[in-house]
Amino acid sequence: MGKAGLPVSPLAPASFPDLPVIGGVEFASGAAGVKYQGRTDVTLIRIAPGSTLAGAFTKSSTRAACVLDNQAKLAEGGEAPEGAAIIVNSGNANAFTGARGQESVDAVTGAVAEAMGVPAGRVFSSSTGVIGEPLPHDRIVSVIGDLASALDQNGAADAARAIMTTDTFPKGASATFDGNGGQIRVTGIAKGSGMIAPDMATMLVYIFTDAKISAPLLQQALDEALPSTFNAITVDSDTSTSDALILAATGRSDTAEITSLNDADGRAFALALAEVMRELAHLVVRDGEGATKFVEVRVTGAMDEGDATKVAMAIANSPLVKTAIAGEDANWGRIVMAVGKSGAVADRDMLTIRFGHLVLAQHGWRSPDYDEAQASAYMKNAELLIAVDLGLGQGARTVWTCDLTHGYIDINADYRS
Amino acid sequence: MGKAGLPVSPLAPASFPDLPVIGGVEFASGAAGVKYQGRTDVTLIRIAPGSTLAGAFTKSSTRAACVLDNQAKLAEGGEAPEGAAIIVNSGNANAFTGARGQESVDAVTGAVAEAMGVPAGRVFSSSTGVIGEPLPHDRIVSVIGDLASALDQNGAADAARAIMTTDTFPKGASATFDGNGGQIRVTGIAKGSGMIAPDMATMLVYIFTDAKISAPLLQQALDEALPSTFNAITVDSDTSTSDALILAATGRSDTAEITSLNDADGRAFALALAEVMRELAHLVVRDGEGATKFVEVRVTGAMDEGDATKVAMAIANSPLVKTAIAGEDANWGRIVMAVGKSGAVADRDMLTIRFGHLVLAQHGWRSPDYDEAQASAYMKNAELLIAVDLGLGQGARTVWTCDLTHGYIDINADYRS
Repeated sequence: MGKAGLPVSPLAPASFPDLPVIGGVEFASGAAGVKYQGRTDVTLIRIAPGSTLAGAFTKSSTRAACVLDNQAKLAEGGEAPEGAAIIVNSGNANAFTGARGQESVDAVTGAVAEAMGVPAGRVFSSSTGVIGEPLPHDRIVSVIGDLASALDQNGAADAARAIMTTDTFPKGASATFDGNGGQIRVTGIAKGSGMIAPDMATMLVYIFTDAKISAPLLQQALDEALPSTFNAITVDSDTSTSDALILAATGRSDTAEITSLNDADGRAFALALAEVMRELAHLVVRDGEGATKFVEVRVTGAMDEGDATKVAMAIANSPLVKTAIAGEDANWGRIVMAVGKSGAVADRDMLTIRFGHLVLAQHGWRSPDYDEAQASAYMKNAELLIAVDLGLGQGARTVWTCDLTHGYIDINADYRS
Repeated sequence: MGKAGLPVSPLAPASFPDLPVIGGVEFASGAAGVKYQGRTDVTLIRIAPGSTLAGAFTKSSTRAACVLDNQAKLAEGGEAPEGAAIIVNSGNANAFTGARGQESVDAVTGAVAEAMGVPAGRVFSSSTGVIGEPLPHDRIVSVIGDLASALDQNGAADAARAIMTTDTFPKGASATFDGNGGQIRVTGIAKGSGMIAPDMATMLVYIFTDAKISAPLLQQALDEALPSTFNAITVDSDTSTSDALILAATGRSDTAEITSLNDADGRAFALALAEVMRELAHLVVRDGEGATKFVEVRVTGAMDEGDATKVAMAIANSPLVKTAIAGEDANWGRIVMAVGKSGAVADRDMLTIRFGHLVLAQHGWRSPDYDEAQASAYMKNAELLIAVDLGLGQGARTVWTCDLTHGYIDINADYRS
């Protein structure tokens, strides 16, 4: 299903999950031929009146028109008394397309507003794909009527497929928990496999819940979950101009309103949301372009969290570390190199480096327990843990990444053609 | 001549240059079998009494014992009234080898001091290769006597070969200019092809001149040339734990002493030194692991030099930019992405992006003159210019990099075996 018939990532889950229906959310997907042929490339999502909204977006200074438009609309507030809609296309990012970029956003969101009877200020849009090519928005507009009449509560899986670019599998995740008076559901879909590095986000993500929760509290729950989820993954250190996460709460569950994130209900909601976000973030790494290894980098003992983040990201983004992992080489010397270049306070003689349960280095040198055969055997796993303890303080950070393989070069050396 | 018979980089010069002899500098190279077999791997350099010395070293917090030792020795001053020596081995970096690392440095530099009648405090050492393996320093010590009796003013080319690791060709450069009373010569050799990113240094570099110049002024000339030479190149954003540049001036030319970098003689010397440093830095990029393109990234119009550097390095280190170059794809959208993620102040609508003389994008969009066929034809060149003008201020920075290819993965996915 990926571009050019890429094989499905070896790190993909066995199947797309059964996602619980969220009352008040409907999906429709279709083929507008924006760029791809023979597959769906547009998704329309309707969100019921009375829902609340929150969002997080790329911090790129060259972000796309649709991102700027979404941010401006959410800045007006997260309430949607007359409902809201999301329209997404794949194949073209409508990024760096000058004034024409905003014209395309206005054309598409205006057409959705008209077809669905939703205020244009509550129609959000995303475009993903090639940068710098004008978006043929007429093709998208021409299918909106058909999509509006095909909306379906069970359409999330099809939507997850329609928004893919170089993704090799569709991504979905959910969580369900008992709220005060009934069950609460959280369901999300995402796309993304390259140009993945934090600062929010690095992909498109749409998450829905039937919880009753105010827009500011919804935004707070989202913001609190970002550092340990979407801002804790990196495939190639490159950050997209187009990435967006939109979160909607329809309030259709039978539960009481969540009025705080600190009581039992609020904590349960925050936990479920973070769980869905972490699962989707992991799926993006598992579909990292060319990835054959899913790697957790766990840094502890740093002077503070900032230093822990520097070290974790220096390791997770190092081409030399990532190629060694691809080669199943337990080259812990490159971990030492990455710690050294990170800019964090580090003391060579206090470092401990573990791969899984194996201690490779400590006290400034190779561990006396080091066993090359054991280390090499460990590297053959598809899921790896690299743990670094700096031995200096309480700062900790965990991030996730993948290896750097020939597949990454294959995909990216000729993406546009 | 590179590791595992790697083919010579397509960006290599046709031949090793004729390097002018520097009075007072002699070289000897031999095979100690530190790791490599069937090639030279140790170089000894003798620097005459009365010389002055300067140096620059990696800023890695996990730097190797020999780097720490060199820094401590130079901190005592750059004078060498009784002469100095440099001993270099390839194959093993003696980095992250605990207390044993310093013992190896002491053993090797002590043996050189004894064999050559030079104070141990004036014997500098470098080790390059695998990190975390104990250095078999006895093998090096055992060949020092032979090397000391084979010293030769014409040995620079052999030395350039002996210090190679994954390098595919030896690197040398020189400059000669008329000083006050005669000619002054500058000759340098270098190694380095991976783990290349600034913060000084990212390689081993030894530069010699017969100029008469005090140690502080020599250090000043070196420091002033670094930002536009060795700190302006990047292969993979990874910084070595072992990198070092040592500069020695023997004063053996017939010219008057250089007493300022601001008069004619001083400027001529600074220029010649910077020329040799830039040429050596470029040779390192031309031997970047797997490189098939030599790329100049020229950023202008930034708010300040710091912002220009952020943008230039974001472009030069972006895996997506570098793979597009490998694929000869004029994917200027990825340049926009890199500008956006750099953290520098940027205004999408003020950006101008050129590849060579071709304007690809300006005023926030694809240039009206953009011609895909022309752009694609340009990308087939082995030497490329990517120029970005931010249109905001006077900040400028030029850096050099190479593309990211299958060759990089081949070399680095299995370096240790």
